[in-house]
Amino acid sequence: MHRIMKKIDLSPWRIRHGSACDLHDFSTQPEGPLSLNEDEVRQQTQKLSARLNKLQSKLHAANSHAVLLVLQGMDTSGKDGVIRHVFANVSPLGVRAVPFSAPAEAELKHDFLWRIHGKVPARGELVIFNRSHYEDVLVTRVHKLIDKTTCSKRYEHISHFESLLHDSGTTVVKCYLHISKSEQKKRLQQRIDDPDKHWKLQPSDFSDRKLWPKFISAYEDTISATSTKNAPWYIVPADSKPHRDLFIATLLVQTLELMDLTMPKPNFSLDDVILT
Amino acid sequence: MHRIMKKIDLSPWRIRHGSACDLHDFSTQPEGPLSLNEDEVRQQTQKLSARLNKLQSKLHAANSHAVLLVLQGMDTSGKDGVIRHVFANVSPLGVRAVPFSAPAEAELKHDFLWRIHGKVPARGELVIFNRSHYEDVLVTRVHKLIDKTTCSKRYEHISHFESLLHDSGTTVVKCYLHISKSEQKKRLQQRIDDPDKHWKLQPSDFSDRKLWPKFISAYEDTISATSTKNAPWYIVPADSKPHRDLFIATLLVQTLELMDLTMPKPNFSLDDVILT
Repeated sequence: MHRIMKKIDLSPWRIRHGSACDLHDFSTQPEGPLSLNEDEVRQQTQKLSARLNKLQSKLHAANSHAVLLVLQGMDTSGKDGVIRHVFANVSPLGVRAVPFSAPAEAELKHDFLWRIHGKVPARGELVIFNRSHYEDVLVTRVHKLIDKTTCSKRYEHISHFESLLHDSGTTVVKCYLHISKSEQKKRLQQRIDDPDKHWKLQPSDFSDRKLWPKFISAYEDTISATSTKNAPWYIVPADSKPHRDLFIATLLVQTLELMDLTMPKPNFSLDDVILT
Repeated sequence: MHRIMKKIDLSPWRIRHGSACDLHDFSTQPEGPLSLNEDEVRQQTQKLSARLNKLQSKLHAANSHAVLLVLQGMDTSGKDGVIRHVFANVSPLGVRAVPFSAPAEAELKHDFLWRIHGKVPARGELVIFNRSHYEDVLVTRVHKLIDKTTCSKRYEHISHFESLLHDSGTTVVKCYLHISKSEQKKRLQQRIDDPDKHWKLQPSDFSDRKLWPKFISAYEDTISATSTKNAPWYIVPADSKPHRDLFIATLLVQTLELMDLTMPKPNFSLDDVILT
């Protein structure tokens, strides 16, 4: 079963370069090869997470490549959850999660990619962006902080930037966590009902929910414009948390296994070493 | 005379986007409108330097634009000298000089623009790069550390990067300090003869001198590929130090005067203020 999951074909959820993304074409529920029962799913995710840990150690030792996982999605879509569950068995030695909230004053004095560039993975690292440079073409556009021309230019700057990362050995994987509006209602209600979850709530959760169609449309434009061969977008069905985690774990294991990671040989002869 | 210098047309020394740069077409001596006598030159430079200080204060107060001056050139071409003389009257409050030497280990774990991006000017700042990202297509190419394909890709990455800076309000001005091989010989000899200047000498000064034609050719390719409308290269005649400084001072004053710098109004009424 482990082998089967590793071979699962995720390409139906990948947006091809140049094709227009219509999010209504994608179910927020797991379908096809993803529609396993929850027990199977949890077991698989755990195995993949352990495999991810080994592959990450190899990435670190090989010191030749890097991975950048970009997580985007509506409020409550599960960005934190993915980081908590998929990376449960992965050592923080070579993994960093970087959250991006609204830019600080010093960051606003620079181009929008300045603070992003500073946080990209070094060779050997796997970095997860919890929100990212994509906020600068999503929330800014929906709230009309930038006009259409600026937004189009930013799409181009993003593609060029990601191509720079690719050319230096960084694989960029971008995931849109796709939830339905009714699933978001359920999750927000749970947060309202549970005082332990109140810290997660912000007024913008409710005001942005009212702009749902505008956010969907901004995501569609963004994904269509910035899904490239070397940095594609995946539309991750995310109404089911365990299936969402399985998807991302599978994607990362496949990504790392496709990399040509070789353990470096020591640059001195071990034959000469005498331990006393 | 002050007014005349400000109006001097430097476009003959600017490389147009898309045109091939042949450095042999450019004299290393000041010619045409630049051929003033040394007294006039020093006087002009001093006046321009004072004007630069005022314009820089305005840049700082306006907080809307930035300037990045990139200085490149062979060893002894005068990068340090420009920074010392042209900015003699400019306050360090809003000016930073950033030297780039060989990249450190942590920097080599990232794309070649990573360490550069971290040092670009914030809005309101004027930053001088003493060497720059251009070393990554010059010294690396002459010493065959990168192949031609990688070099061409880097030209593109550089142009995209500079276009990102331009779109966020940063004017990029690039100067190649053009000296003759015989002038370099004279300057190296002066350093050899003066023990106080020995600290400036490195073995690479002499080995790189032997590769002079290869460096010239690498500069020509680089300048041809990366001189754009928004980030043009200037070929600065640099055999005469005072004329070289006059050129750069003029260029910077003209650049800042072309910017639409307006002093921001206070965001509260001064009428209500009563000092007690």
